[in-house]
Amino acid sequence: MGQKNAKPQRPKAIQPRGFRDYFGAEVAERNAMLGEICKVYESYGFDPLETSAIETLDALGKYLPDVDRPNAGVFAWTDEDEDWLALRYDLTAPLARVYAQYRNDLPSPYRRYAVGPVWRNEKPGPGRFRQFYQCDADTVGAPTVAADAEIAVMLTDTLEAVGIPRGDYVVRINNRKVLNGVMEAAGVLDPSDPDRHEHERGIVLRAIDKLDRLGTDGVRALLGKGRKDASGDFTEGAGLSDDQAAVIMAFMDARREDGAATLRALADLVGVSEVGREGVAELETIAALVAARGVGEDRVMLDPSVVRGLGYYTGPVFEAELTFDIFDEKGRKRQFGSVSGGGRYDGLVKRFTGQAVPATGISIGVDRLLAALREKGRAGGALPGPVVVTVMDRDRMADYQAMAAELRAAGIRAEVFLGNPGNFGKQLKYADARQSPVAVIEGPDEKARGVVQIKDLALGARLAANIETHDDWKAQPAQMEIARADLVDQVRGMIARAQAG
Amino acid sequence: MGQKNAKPQRPKAIQPRGFRDYFGAEVAERNAMLGEICKVYESYGFDPLETSAIETLDALGKYLPDVDRPNAGVFAWTDEDEDWLALRYDLTAPLARVYAQYRNDLPSPYRRYAVGPVWRNEKPGPGRFRQFYQCDADTVGAPTVAADAEIAVMLTDTLEAVGIPRGDYVVRINNRKVLNGVMEAAGVLDPSDPDRHEHERGIVLRAIDKLDRLGTDGVRALLGKGRKDASGDFTEGAGLSDDQAAVIMAFMDARREDGAATLRALADLVGVSEVGREGVAELETIAALVAARGVGEDRVMLDPSVVRGLGYYTGPVFEAELTFDIFDEKGRKRQFGSVSGGGRYDGLVKRFTGQAVPATGISIGVDRLLAALREKGRAGGALPGPVVVTVMDRDRMADYQAMAAELRAAGIRAEVFLGNPGNFGKQLKYADARQSPVAVIEGPDEKARGVVQIKDLALGARLAANIETHDDWKAQPAQMEIARADLVDQVRGMIARAQAG
Repeated sequence: MGQKNAKPQRPKAIQPRGFRDYFGAEVAERNAMLGEICKVYESYGFDPLETSAIETLDALGKYLPDVDRPNAGVFAWTDEDEDWLALRYDLTAPLARVYAQYRNDLPSPYRRYAVGPVWRNEKPGPGRFRQFYQCDADTVGAPTVAADAEIAVMLTDTLEAVGIPRGDYVVRINNRKVLNGVMEAAGVLDPSDPDRHEHERGIVLRAIDKLDRLGTDGVRALLGKGRKDASGDFTEGAGLSDDQAAVIMAFMDARREDGAATLRALADLVGVSEVGREGVAELETIAALVAARGVGEDRVMLDPSVVRGLGYYTGPVFEAELTFDIFDEKGRKRQFGSVSGGGRYDGLVKRFTGQAVPATGISIGVDRLLAALREKGRAGGALPGPVVVTVMDRDRMADYQAMAAELRAAGIRAEVFLGNPGNFGKQLKYADARQSPVAVIEGPDEKARGVVQIKDLALGARLAANIETHDDWKAQPAQMEIARADLVDQVRGMIARAQAG
Repeated sequence: MGQKNAKPQRPKAIQPRGFRDYFGAEVAERNAMLGEICKVYESYGFDPLETSAIETLDALGKYLPDVDRPNAGVFAWTDEDEDWLALRYDLTAPLARVYAQYRNDLPSPYRRYAVGPVWRNEKPGPGRFRQFYQCDADTVGAPTVAADAEIAVMLTDTLEAVGIPRGDYVVRINNRKVLNGVMEAAGVLDPSDPDRHEHERGIVLRAIDKLDRLGTDGVRALLGKGRKDASGDFTEGAGLSDDQAAVIMAFMDARREDGAATLRALADLVGVSEVGREGVAELETIAALVAARGVGEDRVMLDPSVVRGLGYYTGPVFEAELTFDIFDEKGRKRQFGSVSGGGRYDGLVKRFTGQAVPATGISIGVDRLLAALREKGRAGGALPGPVVVTVMDRDRMADYQAMAAELRAAGIRAEVFLGNPGNFGKQLKYADARQSPVAVIEGPDEKARGVVQIKDLALGARLAANIETHDDWKAQPAQMEIARADLVDQVRGMIARAQAG
């Protein structure tokens, strides 16, 4: 409306809010870590499965965690037939769809692993992205808690395989059935009318799951009348009486000096509850199987304070925590915290088929685990910088390409400078930006004498900022003149010496 | 409205139309192939980049190929701020956005590779999916055609690295500048008024790109008045006169017995056109660089019939074709066809910044290349079936888990049967479905004697269908009784013999 249209509007070169790009080493490190994880999963007999990013909204269902938070949700839209499509928000919902769809063709039990991005249409925040990787392993169709014990032990093997040393992690196990038994004892679960108090139980579950963040007092408030947070927002409580709340608080605090003592404490708490006793017996079996594998309680322990926020768990639940200290942005010491969680969910496939199908599994938070490895200096897969063949004579590109090809054929990453070769200093700055270990130089003089110059860039990096000409460059101590025929051997040797030094 | 609501509606266990799931070996083979491709890209100095699946619709732009086809498009929706978001339809548009966004921090030239799914909101068809993988390598910021020559040679190395033998592929190269020169000669491009005839040139471009499908007569019709296809649909033609069309047809047919002769034919066709002469000179340089690398015209050839459908190419274009014959579903012999394409696009970054940035690259059609490798029996990465430890006594799960753990520690994929162990035949059918090489059996009798039975399942598979009991099983010839202490060595030997046999 009357606007001048002098310039066409240019699009903004920016990713949408809550999304990010991963460059070079970030991609290589993640792929290296995922490769190690998948190798462990495969060794346990898990097979890869890759589903599409897009599912029908109907198939995904509404199983997002933290449903009490605003803006929680999925990216969804209608297609040309007006059907709702959505991006997957985890890897479990697609697995349930796949198992229901192919159940007659899949082996039973079906052990599958999956790696890939998931999407959450949530308010982005610092370090909180709307696309992130998960890496899951699940066993579908195995009713025995031996499957849960296997998953817990596999998780310890996985963490050690990627470089988290023993002593720096612990896998905590609990059982929703025990919690249900405790709820019975507290009078918020009536086995003869299982739907009654469902709303209150949801609040109890989410309250326990927030113990780390809110502390005992915060959880206690949520079990009772409710809680006002620092911003003044009020969260509704479960409305439990003091006596009822005390039973739940005792449950959260039921971890004892060892697993056997914890099991006795839990048995006391669930009293005569049938589901509670079943849950305690399952934990006992899992603990025995884990111990029989030689995995001590320093690595896998029973911990009643772990409940997991998701509503769909029906039995054992797991959480892997890294126990070493880090310092946050304000310099405060804190523990690294959870990098993986999971549990048994016997109802997800039933949504599709009407028949209950037992299932259990874990999901690894890939970005968090990778951050932990970086913290420990254990992230692998770093891509070495390429040898850069500089261009002294732009008519001799074929010769420079031949040098790079010879180096590559010997397994050395190498490239020819393809920018404007006019300013030699720019070629050196480029090599620097590429973290190149060695630069190769062959000007007309070198060509005539059958030699090339090779330059140790790690050694020379401190001086490079001041170099403008080829002659300055030649004067540097980290440079060697070698016979052209010895290029590959000499470059290999220079890289080896730089790595050793 | 009056419907009975006896049952809750269950979601359908099915993926949306045009999407598919990839199981086990399909995932493993693709990952193995992508790993090989990325290794070649990295050896040439390309660094990985991973952007999110979601971009602003604005940043993606409208560069989809085949814009003359109905239903072409992207998956897009508005977010809570009413901004349009979309799933990327290729890996080039996100690269242009990234380069524009980070251009001051990235090395220049920037060689990057990217691997991942892309999405097209198109009508699905047989073998035509709405999510598929691409694997791209691009050099941004290099004006020299040495960058194009490098990409073409790297493509040959890549195809050979994944298992396409020399002789079974050819990389064809052309140059849009030559085509523009020919358009000038034909009178559909006026250098003093470049926007004139743009619509006609678009039709010419897409017509040439369809040569494979439509043949000479079909293209000729599209250059003139237009073409009615078998279904009766009419496609508008470029409206060229017979003389004009003859120039274009001569261009498409300008490939001669060798590159030098082809270059002479092209020089004749472009006549005095400045851009045309520049294009011919570029092709000459590329041909010389490729030849200097020792890559013959059997592997990289000049072919004027290659133009690529995308409107954004500005210089050299590439296409890799597999030249071996396959038989289609109707038993007709045909060539496998194109598995990769690309070219120079100097305008994509300019969309964002206003400054032209030279860029060139290729995209590999991952699913098509993998299909070709399967056709040739060259797909790698197959995951071996796991050794299955059967469960004869459900109270001794810990012992069975220990056996599987010992095998895994020796690098052998192994798992314990976790279904209902009551029916031994079912355990064998499970091992069969898992393509297990060896089953391990330890019943009470074996346990008492300190032995286990191991069974060569490849050998025994033919008989397995009729086995119901443990005794039947023991009677099979492919079974051995071994000392429990020798489990790992004996299983390893059995697998080795099965592989050798």
